[in-house]
Amino acid sequence: MEFELASGMEVLRRTPAALRALLDGLPEPWIRGTEGPDTFSAFDNIGHLIDGEETDWIPRARIILAGGPDPRFEPYDRFRHWERNKGRSLESLLDEFRDLRAANIGLLGSWRLTEEQLALPGNHPFLGPVTLRQLLAAWVAHDLGHVAQVARVMAKQYREAVGPWVPFLPVLTDHEVPRS
Amino acid sequence: MEFELASGMEVLRRTPAALRALLDGLPEPWIRGTEGPDTFSAFDNIGHLIDGEETDWIPRARIILAGGPDPRFEPYDRFRHWERNKGRSLESLLDEFRDLRAANIGLLGSWRLTEEQLALPGNHPFLGPVTLRQLLAAWVAHDLGHVAQVARVMAKQYREAVGPWVPFLPVLTDHEVPRS
Repeated sequence: MEFELASGMEVLRRTPAALRALLDGLPEPWIRGTEGPDTFSAFDNIGHLIDGEETDWIPRARIILAGGPDPRFEPYDRFRHWERNKGRSLESLLDEFRDLRAANIGLLGSWRLTEEQLALPGNHPFLGPVTLRQLLAAWVAHDLGHVAQVARVMAKQYREAVGPWVPFLPVLTDHEVPRS
Repeated sequence: MEFELASGMEVLRRTPAALRALLDGLPEPWIRGTEGPDTFSAFDNIGHLIDGEETDWIPRARIILAGGPDPRFEPYDRFRHWERNKGRSLESLLDEFRDLRAANIGLLGSWRLTEEQLALPGNHPFLGPVTLRQLLAAWVAHDLGHVAQVARVMAKQYREAVGPWVPFLPVLTDHEVPRS
Protein backbone atom coordinates (compact mmCIF):
# COMPACT_ATOMS: atom_id res chain seq x y z
CA MET A 1 0.00 0.00 0.00
CA GLU A 2 1.38 3.36 -1.04
CA PHE A 3 1.29 6.23 1.42
CA GLU A 4 -1.54 8.57 0.53
CA LEU A 5 -1.97 11.59 2.80
CA ALA A 6 -5.77 11.59 3.16
CA SER A 7 -5.92 7.86 3.81
CA GLY A 8 -3.06 7.96 6.33
CA MET A 9 -4.71 10.85 8.14
CA GLU A 10 -7.88 8.77 8.53
CA VAL A 11 -5.88 6.40 10.73
CA LEU A 12 -4.16 9.17 12.70
CA ARG A 13 -7.54 10.74 13.37
CA ARG A 14 -8.95 7.53 14.90
CA THR A 15 -6.16 6.54 17.29
CA PRO A 16 -7.11 8.65 20.34
CA ALA A 17 -10.75 7.45 20.30
CA ALA A 18 -9.71 3.83 19.75
CA LEU A 19 -7.37 3.93 22.76
CA ARG A 20 -9.99 5.67 24.86
CA ALA A 21 -12.61 3.06 23.97
CA LEU A 22 -10.16 0.31 24.89
CA LEU A 23 -8.85 1.79 28.14
CA ASP A 24 -10.94 4.49 29.75
CA GLY A 25 -12.37 3.43 33.09
CA LEU A 26 -10.59 0.07 33.30
CA PRO A 27 -9.33 -1.16 36.68
CA GLU A 28 -5.76 -0.02 37.40
CA PRO A 29 -4.06 -3.44 36.99
CA TRP A 30 -5.03 -3.41 33.28
CA ILE A 31 -3.63 0.10 32.89
CA ARG A 32 -0.41 -0.29 34.86
CA GLY A 33 0.69 -3.85 34.04
CA THR A 34 3.82 -4.20 31.88
CA GLU A 35 5.64 -6.96 29.97
CA GLY A 36 8.58 -6.83 32.39
CA PRO A 37 11.23 -4.38 33.59
CA ASP A 38 11.69 -1.26 31.42
CA THR A 39 8.70 -2.08 29.22
CA PHE A 40 5.64 0.13 28.69
CA SER A 41 2.30 -0.30 30.41
CA ALA A 42 -0.86 0.84 28.63
CA PHE A 43 -0.49 4.12 30.57
CA ASP A 44 3.11 4.48 29.38
CA ASN A 45 2.04 3.93 25.77
CA ILE A 46 -0.30 6.91 25.95
CA GLY A 47 2.48 8.98 27.49
CA HIS A 48 4.83 7.92 24.70
CA LEU A 49 2.26 8.86 22.04
CA ILE A 50 1.91 12.30 23.67
CA ASP A 51 5.69 12.72 23.50
CA GLY A 52 5.45 11.90 19.80
CA GLU A 53 2.90 14.67 19.26
CA GLU A 54 5.03 17.21 21.11
CA THR A 55 8.56 16.30 20.08
CA ASP A 56 8.63 13.93 17.12
CA TRP A 57 6.36 13.87 14.07
CA ILE A 58 5.28 17.46 13.54
CA PRO A 59 8.58 19.00 14.72
CA ARG A 60 10.42 16.75 12.26
CA ALA A 61 7.99 17.58 9.45
CA ARG A 62 8.68 21.27 10.14
CA ILE A 63 12.43 20.67 9.88
CA ILE A 64 11.92 19.01 6.48
CA LEU A 65 9.59 21.74 5.23
CA ALA A 66 11.96 24.48 6.37
CA GLY A 67 14.33 23.17 3.69
CA GLY A 68 17.59 24.15 5.39
CA PRO A 69 20.99 22.87 4.27
CA ASP A 70 21.00 20.07 6.89
CA PRO A 71 17.44 18.98 7.72
CA ARG A 72 18.66 16.92 10.67
CA PHE A 73 16.13 15.79 13.30
CA GLU A 74 16.64 16.10 17.04
CA PRO A 75 17.09 12.68 18.67
CA TYR A 76 13.85 11.49 20.24
CA ASP A 77 13.66 10.64 23.96
CA ARG A 78 11.62 7.45 24.31
CA PHE A 79 11.45 7.83 28.10
CA ARG A 80 10.56 11.52 28.50
CA HIS A 81 7.03 10.55 29.55
CA TRP A 82 8.15 8.55 32.61
CA GLU A 83 9.18 11.70 34.45
CA ARG A 84 6.63 13.99 32.78
CA ASN A 85 3.51 12.02 33.68
CA LYS A 86 4.18 10.93 37.25
CA GLY A 87 0.99 11.24 39.29
CA ARG A 88 -1.20 11.82 36.22
CA SER A 89 -4.41 9.89 35.65
CA LEU A 90 -4.95 7.84 32.52
CA GLU A 91 -8.02 9.91 31.72
CA SER A 92 -6.02 13.14 31.75
CA LEU A 93 -3.45 11.58 29.39
CA LEU A 94 -6.21 10.39 27.03
CA ASP A 95 -7.64 13.91 27.00
CA GLU A 96 -4.24 15.42 26.35
CA PHE A 97 -3.44 12.98 23.54
CA ARG A 98 -6.83 13.68 21.92
CA ASP A 99 -6.26 17.44 22.00
CA LEU A 100 -2.65 17.34 20.80
CA ARG A 101 -3.52 14.93 17.99
CA ALA A 102 -6.50 17.01 16.87
CA ALA A 103 -4.30 20.11 16.71
CA ASN A 104 -1.56 18.28 14.81
CA ILE A 105 -4.01 16.77 12.32
CA GLY A 106 -5.48 20.22 11.79
CA LEU A 107 -2.02 21.64 11.18
CA LEU A 108 -1.03 18.83 8.82
CA GLY A 109 -4.22 19.32 6.82
CA SER A 110 -3.69 23.09 6.69
CA TRP A 111 -0.33 22.61 4.97
CA ARG A 112 -2.04 21.14 1.86
CA LEU A 113 1.12 19.22 1.07
CA THR A 114 1.99 18.62 -2.56
CA GLU A 115 3.67 15.53 -3.99
CA GLU A 116 6.83 17.63 -4.35
CA GLN A 117 6.76 18.53 -0.66
CA LEU A 118 6.15 14.90 0.34
CA ALA A 119 9.37 14.02 -1.49
CA LEU A 120 11.48 16.57 0.44
CA PRO A 121 14.40 15.13 2.44
CA GLY A 122 15.10 14.92 6.13
CA ASN A 123 18.07 13.49 7.98
CA HIS A 124 17.33 11.03 10.77
CA PRO A 125 20.06 10.88 13.45
CA PHE A 126 20.20 7.06 13.30
CA LEU A 127 18.42 6.05 10.08
CA GLY A 128 19.96 8.59 7.69
CA PRO A 129 18.16 10.13 4.71
CA VAL A 130 14.37 9.94 4.76
CA THR A 131 11.52 11.79 3.04
CA LEU A 132 8.54 13.65 4.46
CA ARG A 133 6.32 10.95 2.93
CA GLN A 134 8.21 8.24 4.85
CA LEU A 135 8.04 10.27 8.07
CA LEU A 136 4.26 10.58 7.79
CA ALA A 137 3.87 6.88 6.93
CA ALA A 138 6.01 6.04 9.97
CA TRP A 139 3.74 8.22 12.14
CA VAL A 140 0.74 6.12 11.06
CA ALA A 141 2.52 2.77 11.51
CA HIS A 142 3.86 3.95 14.90
CA ASP A 143 0.31 4.65 16.09
CA LEU A 144 -0.82 1.20 15.05
CA GLY A 145 2.23 -0.40 16.65
CA HIS A 146 1.30 1.18 19.95
CA VAL A 147 -2.34 0.15 19.69
CA ALA A 148 -1.03 -3.39 19.17
CA GLN A 149 1.38 -2.99 22.09
CA VAL A 150 -1.36 -1.80 24.45
CA ALA A 151 -3.53 -4.79 23.58
CA ARG A 152 -0.56 -7.16 23.87
CA VAL A 153 0.61 -5.93 27.28
CA MET A 154 -2.95 -6.17 28.57
CA ALA A 155 -3.36 -9.72 27.22
CA LYS A 156 -0.14 -10.78 28.92
CA GLN A 157 -1.57 -9.91 32.32
CA TYR A 158 -3.61 -13.12 31.85
CA ARG A 159 -0.73 -15.32 30.73
CA GLU A 160 -1.07 -17.54 33.81
CA ALA A 161 -4.84 -17.20 34.11
CA VAL A 162 -5.56 -18.81 30.73
CA GLY A 163 -3.87 -22.06 31.81
CA PRO A 164 -3.51 -24.47 28.87
CA TRP A 165 -4.69 -21.91 26.26
CA VAL A 166 -1.24 -20.30 25.83
CA PRO A 167 -0.35 -22.07 22.53
CA PHE A 168 -3.66 -20.95 20.97
CA LEU A 169 -3.13 -17.32 22.02
CA PRO A 170 0.08 -16.24 20.27
CA VAL A 171 -0.25 -12.68 21.60
CA LEU A 172 0.82 -14.08 24.99
CA THR A 173 4.22 -15.13 23.68
CA ASP A 174 4.91 -12.24 21.29
CA HIS A 175 7.91 -10.06 22.25
CA GLU A 176 9.16 -12.30 25.03
CA VAL A 177 12.33 -10.26 24.63
CA PRO A 178 11.45 -6.58 24.14
CA ARG A 179 12.26 -5.44 20.60
CA SER A 180 12.01 -1.69 21.10
CA MET B 1 -2.84 -11.00 37.40
CA GLU B 2 -5.49 -13.40 38.62
CA PHE B 3 -8.69 -13.76 36.64
CA GLU B 4 -11.47 -11.84 38.35
CA LEU B 5 -14.87 -11.96 36.64
CA ALA B 6 -15.90 -8.31 36.99
CA SER B 7 -12.51 -7.03 35.86
CA GLY B 8 -12.36 -9.42 32.89
CA MET B 9 -15.85 -8.41 31.84
CA GLU B 10 -14.74 -4.77 31.75
CA VAL B 11 -12.39 -5.69 28.92
CA LEU B 12 -14.95 -7.83 27.08
CA ARG B 13 -17.41 -4.97 27.25
CA ARG B 14 -15.01 -2.51 25.58
CA THR B 15 -13.78 -4.55 22.61
CA PRO B 16 -16.60 -3.81 20.11
CA ALA B 17 -16.38 -0.04 20.65
CA ALA B 18 -12.58 -0.08 20.48
CA LEU B 19 -12.62 -1.91 17.14
CA ARG B 20 -15.33 0.39 15.82
CA ALA B 21 -13.33 3.48 16.80
CA LEU B 22 -10.26 2.05 15.07
CA LEU B 23 -11.94 0.85 11.87
CA ASP B 24 -15.34 2.28 11.07
CA GLY B 25 -15.30 4.42 7.94
CA LEU B 26 -11.70 3.69 6.94
CA PRO B 27 -10.83 3.32 3.24
CA GLU B 28 -11.15 -0.29 2.06
CA PRO B 29 -7.40 -1.01 1.67
CA TRP B 30 -6.99 -0.61 5.45
CA ILE B 31 -9.90 -2.99 6.08
CA ARG B 32 -9.07 -5.64 3.50
CA GLY B 33 -5.27 -5.82 3.60
CA THR B 34 -3.74 -8.99 5.08
CA GLU B 35 -0.31 -10.21 6.22
CA GLY B 36 -0.12 -12.72 3.34
CA PRO B 37 -2.02 -15.76 2.04
CA ASP B 38 -4.45 -17.37 4.49
CA THR B 39 -4.03 -14.60 7.08
CA PHE B 40 -6.80 -12.40 8.44
CA SER B 41 -7.57 -8.86 7.32
CA ALA B 42 -9.12 -6.43 9.81
CA PHE B 43 -12.50 -7.42 8.31
CA ASP B 44 -11.73 -11.11 8.86
CA ASN B 45 -10.78 -10.44 12.49
CA ILE B 46 -14.25 -9.03 13.16
CA GLY B 47 -15.81 -12.04 11.44
CA HIS B 48 -13.69 -14.35 13.58
CA LEU B 49 -14.74 -12.53 16.76
CA ILE B 50 -18.40 -12.94 15.72
CA ASP B 51 -17.81 -16.67 15.25
CA GLY B 52 -16.42 -16.74 18.78
CA GLU B 53 -19.59 -15.17 20.15
CA GLU B 54 -21.80 -17.64 18.33
CA THR B 55 -19.85 -20.89 18.55
CA ASP B 56 -17.03 -20.70 21.09
CA TRP B 57 -17.00 -18.95 24.45
CA ILE B 58 -20.60 -19.00 25.68
CA PRO B 59 -21.44 -22.41 24.13
CA ARG B 60 -18.37 -23.86 25.89
CA ALA B 61 -19.27 -22.18 29.18
CA ARG B 62 -22.72 -23.77 28.89
CA ILE B 63 -21.15 -27.21 28.37
CA ILE B 64 -19.09 -26.73 31.53
CA LEU B 65 -22.04 -25.44 33.56
CA ALA B 66 -24.25 -28.32 32.38
CA GLY B 67 -21.89 -30.57 34.36
CA GLY B 68 -22.32 -33.70 32.25
CA PRO B 69 -20.03 -36.73 32.55
CA ASP B 70 -17.85 -35.59 29.59
CA PRO B 71 -17.88 -31.77 29.31
CA ARG B 72 -16.14 -31.96 25.93
CA PHE B 73 -16.20 -28.86 23.69
CA GLU B 74 -17.07 -28.93 20.00
CA PRO B 75 -14.01 -28.18 17.87
CA TYR B 76 -13.98 -24.56 16.75
CA ASP B 77 -13.91 -23.62 13.04
CA ARG B 78 -11.46 -20.75 12.62
CA PHE B 79 -12.54 -20.16 9.02
CA ARG B 80 -16.34 -20.29 9.32
CA HIS B 81 -16.51 -16.53 8.81
CA TRP B 82 -14.89 -16.59 5.36
CA GLU B 83 -17.95 -18.18 3.78
CA ARG B 84 -20.47 -16.65 6.21
CA ASN B 85 -19.55 -13.01 5.64
CA LYS B 86 -19.01 -12.84 1.88
CA GLY B 87 -20.51 -9.62 0.54
CA ARG B 88 -21.03 -8.12 4.00
CA SER B 89 -19.90 -4.60 4.88
CA LEU B 90 -17.52 -3.95 7.76
CA GLU B 91 -20.12 -1.73 9.36
CA SER B 92 -22.68 -4.54 9.43
CA LEU B 93 -20.11 -6.87 11.04
CA LEU B 94 -19.26 -4.24 13.66
CA ASP B 95 -22.96 -3.86 14.46
CA GLU B 96 -23.41 -7.61 14.68
CA PHE B 97 -20.38 -8.05 16.93
CA ARG B 98 -21.60 -5.26 19.23
CA ASP B 99 -25.04 -6.85 19.55
CA LEU B 100 -23.80 -10.42 20.05
CA ARG B 101 -21.24 -9.32 22.61
CA ALA B 102 -23.76 -7.22 24.54
CA ALA B 103 -26.11 -10.19 24.72
CA ASN B 104 -23.33 -12.55 25.81
CA ILE B 105 -22.07 -10.15 28.48
CA GLY B 106 -25.62 -9.79 29.75
CA LEU B 107 -25.97 -13.56 29.89
CA LEU B 108 -22.62 -14.04 31.61
CA GLY B 109 -23.53 -11.45 34.23
CA SER B 110 -26.94 -13.02 34.78
CA TRP B 111 -25.31 -16.31 35.76
CA ARG B 112 -23.79 -14.71 38.91
CA LEU B 113 -21.02 -17.27 38.82
CA THR B 114 -19.55 -18.45 42.10
CA GLU B 115 -15.93 -19.39 42.77
CA GLU B 116 -17.06 -23.02 42.80
CA GLN B 117 -18.61 -22.71 39.36
CA LEU B 118 -15.51 -20.96 38.01
CA ALA B 119 -13.52 -24.02 39.06
CA LEU B 120 -15.76 -26.46 37.14
CA PRO B 121 -14.01 -28.56 34.47
CA GLY B 122 -14.32 -28.66 30.71
CA ASN B 123 -12.55 -30.81 28.17
CA HIS B 124 -10.92 -29.02 25.25
CA PRO B 125 -10.58 -31.20 22.13
CA PHE B 126 -6.89 -30.30 21.71
CA LEU B 127 -5.79 -28.77 25.02
CA GLY B 128 -7.39 -31.28 27.41
CA PRO B 129 -8.75 -30.42 30.87
CA VAL B 130 -9.53 -26.75 31.50
CA THR B 131 -11.69 -24.81 33.95
CA LEU B 132 -14.47 -22.28 33.39
CA ARG B 133 -12.17 -19.66 34.90
CA GLN B 134 -9.49 -20.43 32.31
CA LEU B 135 -12.06 -20.37 29.49
CA LEU B 136 -13.25 -16.90 30.51
CA ALA B 137 -9.69 -15.61 30.90
CA ALA B 138 -8.91 -16.99 27.42
CA TRP B 139 -11.93 -15.14 26.04
CA VAL B 140 -10.49 -11.85 27.34
CA ALA B 141 -6.95 -12.55 26.12
CA HIS B 142 -8.35 -13.68 22.74
CA ASP B 143 -10.15 -10.33 22.32
CA LEU B 144 -6.95 -8.44 23.07
CA GLY B 145 -4.96 -10.67 20.73
CA HIS B 146 -7.31 -9.76 17.90
CA VAL B 147 -7.19 -6.05 18.69
CA ALA B 148 -3.40 -6.39 18.46
CA GLN B 149 -3.70 -8.38 15.23
CA VAL B 150 -5.97 -5.78 13.60
CA ALA B 151 -3.51 -3.00 14.43
CA ARG B 152 -0.56 -5.12 13.25
CA VAL B 153 -2.06 -6.11 9.90
CA MET B 154 -2.96 -2.47 9.27
CA ALA B 155 0.55 -1.28 10.17
CA LYS B 156 2.06 -3.80 7.77
CA GLN B 157 0.24 -2.21 4.85
CA TYR B 158 2.87 0.56 5.22
CA ARG B 159 5.89 -1.72 5.48
CA GLU B 160 7.32 -0.35 2.23
CA ALA B 161 5.99 3.17 2.69
CA VAL B 162 7.98 3.84 5.88
CA GLY B 163 11.28 3.30 4.06
CA PRO B 164 14.22 3.21 6.52
CA TRP B 165 11.97 3.25 9.63
CA VAL B 166 11.39 -0.53 9.64
CA PRO B 167 13.90 -1.35 12.46
CA PHE B 168 12.29 1.27 14.74
CA LEU B 169 8.77 -0.10 14.14
CA PRO B 170 8.88 -3.71 15.40
CA VAL B 171 5.17 -4.19 14.66
CA LEU B 172 6.14 -4.34 10.97
CA THR B 173 8.23 -7.47 11.46
CA ASP B 174 6.11 -9.26 14.05
CA HIS B 175 4.61 -12.57 12.88
CA GLU B 176 6.54 -12.75 9.62
CA VAL B 177 5.48 -16.40 9.70
CA PRO B 178 1.84 -16.66 10.86
CA ARG B 179 1.61 -18.23 14.34
CA SER B 180 -2.09 -18.97 14.43
